[in-house]
Amino acid sequence: MSNQKPSIPKGTRDFGPEEMARRNYIFDTIRGVFKKHGYVPIETPAMENLDTLLGKYGEEGDKLLFKILNSGDFLNGIDPEGMTSGALSMKLCEKGLRYDLTVPFARYVVQHQQEVEFPFRRYQIQPVWRADRPQKGRYREFYQCDADVIGSNSLLNEADLLGIIDTVFSKLNVRAKIKLNNRKILAGIADYIGQPEKITDITVAIDKIEKIGFDAVNQELEQKGVSVQGIYKLEPLFAITGYNQEKLDKLGRILQHSATGLKGIDEIKNLLAYLKPLDLKSTVELDISLARGLNYYTGTIIEVKAMDAEIGSICGGGRYDDLTGIFGLKDISGVGISFGADRIYDVMKHLKLFPGETDRSSQIMFANFGENEALYCLTLLAKLHAAGVSAELYPDNAKLKKQLSYADARHIQFIVLAGENEIREGLLAVKNMVTGEQVKVTPEELVELVKSE
Amino acid sequence: MSNQKPSIPKGTRDFGPEEMARRNYIFDTIRGVFKKHGYVPIETPAMENLDTLLGKYGEEGDKLLFKILNSGDFLNGIDPEGMTSGALSMKLCEKGLRYDLTVPFARYVVQHQQEVEFPFRRYQIQPVWRADRPQKGRYREFYQCDADVIGSNSLLNEADLLGIIDTVFSKLNVRAKIKLNNRKILAGIADYIGQPEKITDITVAIDKIEKIGFDAVNQELEQKGVSVQGIYKLEPLFAITGYNQEKLDKLGRILQHSATGLKGIDEIKNLLAYLKPLDLKSTVELDISLARGLNYYTGTIIEVKAMDAEIGSICGGGRYDDLTGIFGLKDISGVGISFGADRIYDVMKHLKLFPGETDRSSQIMFANFGENEALYCLTLLAKLHAAGVSAELYPDNAKLKKQLSYADARHIQFIVLAGENEIREGLLAVKNMVTGEQVKVTPEELVELVKSE
Repeated sequence: MSNQKPSIPKGTRDFGPEEMARRNYIFDTIRGVFKKHGYVPIETPAMENLDTLLGKYGEEGDKLLFKILNSGDFLNGIDPEGMTSGALSMKLCEKGLRYDLTVPFARYVVQHQQEVEFPFRRYQIQPVWRADRPQKGRYREFYQCDADVIGSNSLLNEADLLGIIDTVFSKLNVRAKIKLNNRKILAGIADYIGQPEKITDITVAIDKIEKIGFDAVNQELEQKGVSVQGIYKLEPLFAITGYNQEKLDKLGRILQHSATGLKGIDEIKNLLAYLKPLDLKSTVELDISLARGLNYYTGTIIEVKAMDAEIGSICGGGRYDDLTGIFGLKDISGVGISFGADRIYDVMKHLKLFPGETDRSSQIMFANFGENEALYCLTLLAKLHAAGVSAELYPDNAKLKKQLSYADARHIQFIVLAGENEIREGLLAVKNMVTGEQVKVTPEELVELVKSE
Repeated sequence: MSNQKPSIPKGTRDFGPEEMARRNYIFDTIRGVFKKHGYVPIETPAMENLDTLLGKYGEEGDKLLFKILNSGDFLNGIDPEGMTSGALSMKLCEKGLRYDLTVPFARYVVQHQQEVEFPFRRYQIQPVWRADRPQKGRYREFYQCDADVIGSNSLLNEADLLGIIDTVFSKLNVRAKIKLNNRKILAGIADYIGQPEKITDITVAIDKIEKIGFDAVNQELEQKGVSVQGIYKLEPLFAITGYNQEKLDKLGRILQHSATGLKGIDEIKNLLAYLKPLDLKSTVELDISLARGLNYYTGTIIEVKAMDAEIGSICGGGRYDDLTGIFGLKDISGVGISFGADRIYDVMKHLKLFPGETDRSSQIMFANFGENEALYCLTLLAKLHAAGVSAELYPDNAKLKKQLSYADARHIQFIVLAGENEIREGLLAVKNMVTGEQVKVTPEELVELVKSE
């Protein structure tokens, strides 16, 4: 075999020990909070049947699915002559990599409905894959950390999820602003301008206000067939300012003739009331320009931004009333959130929020002075492991300088030097790499010395 | 969209909360021991470039790779006319799902050689994918838990890995038998029968002794061109019995003219000497019929069987002297082990070895008696969460019976009943679902009550 210059597919990443430690710090924090709120874990396969995935993420989403070539003689019985790539791919592939965790979750709930206890509070932390054009902060493989409650339409679930969001970011020391909206308010706005059928177009356009500004949004609305009069009526809506209560009052007056719109306002009011006893640290702000593209949201819409970093949303979610319907289970309401671990990582790295301790490896390394000394150290090593101390023996009888520089690079605090003399005396020389101190201790004292750190 | 009956690709699995808790118990145990021995984690992408994977697992392995269809207009410039599936697949796909964790690790080490501190002790716990025919206990997606040391040829590394194996299975309460062999002994045997060039065929055939028996193995050897005389000379070798020391002595006499064979015997002797101070609980047995198919092993070969269950190996590994060579980094010796989490799960389930506690969800559930009561409970809930107690509020004002049966199904121990009366009194009724006891406590006493459990 010829030499290959090793590389990985574009948009994917290797994670080394230091990054792993930091990523695990984020995952462990999120997982810990999910658990504390009574959510239980599930995992689904990386590959789903393509018909589970197709049509769930819009036309654009379908194109971004990674498809798996059928195994074996996949061409058997297929004449590719004259077929387009799109048509042929459907013949050659019946599986795809999951695109998010929400659709697999919906599929899971329907498939396992007999085993599931409703309301079902599940969390799921797994990678997803999208054939997006890779760019800064956007990857083709990335982790999502989702928590959803399915089988209950109480707004207490929204409150609980917002409590989770608040706790996670406060534990991670990331100052967060939680933006709320309600799809029914957006529907009310479409009612108000007299074009309820344009709700989707309006939602999609509105979602871009922050990115492309009012003028471009208005242009897009016009293209989509929203009347000029409608566009005029829309504009002041998005200029509504003030505290949440003021905004809701103003909005209530504008949407007074839309039953749906008023219901949305009511839901936000109730949710805000539930949040009071939770005493969140994060700012919570009603933002009626928040739509989050995804058409399956039917009620509450949630998006979280980091206050001290310029980056897209670091968490988002919402309520969907009929996600499981397409898989045959009707009238099951759900609400969920998804943390974007990669963006959170970027924010924390940028703001230097990782604790120094995350990349700890062994606490102790025994230097290697040769066969006999190594055998002597092995007994001690086994004792340390049994006592719960992470420890290792340098495997080769290399120069001490090399061994010490290895320990140093790996941030190992204690080096045990057990040479011929020490073994004869029944003592161990222990060098503290942080303080530079060196002491002689008995093997028994070694465990205590390390544990006291 | 029409209704779809939800399903997942054959050979893949969903894991529900109970299975997840048990699987995490296995993963956490393995991870904990890896860490205690100073191994650090890495993760690599699910997708690798196909040229990283192809040719590494033999012809059969190449066929078992899941290939990813190129994105976009993948047919552009390709005329599929007259191409075989195999040839076409190489035009349509440039990525594949990883087949194991060893080759991606080798690729990682070469690609990141400037950042890596040698000897590099890494662990990696991730799923792998193989387009194998699914059958009982064999899946198309399964997890591997690998630990490898690369950049040191000391047998202390083998000893350390065997220590890890022993600790993992003793923590999991799985009685394990560790089988050892050395590729150099197998080479010595090929020398001994005078056909050193047949080492691979002999290895592959020998590996099947346990599965297909001597006669079938001999037949295969004959087909592969091993002389009848050679086959006669082989047979008594595999009938060698006794303690490890006796076996080594007998083998030493037989292989006395093969320098390689004697080196293999020496390595096993040294390794056994290193194991003494570690005082392993598992049985360690030299088994010269152990070959583990994989041709990249060059020294020690390791395989672990559960003593109380009829199942294939639950862990395996060995030393490879030139794994990174194909990626351009020569003369780096490595040794590694891989735990098969799925098989371990099956063994533990069969032997009922999972502790009852693994599937804990919330410790406390607040029953829901309506709006005002829920608001009252939310404050307490936030306090419990802050105190580190896992707790939830039933989200709907459903019949109490339904709420209790939900709590029961989820093994929640304490139900807090805070109705109108309790709230007026400033007390909470707490029902212990395990003992049936019901007590009234103040909110402050509630935290203590739960924490004392």
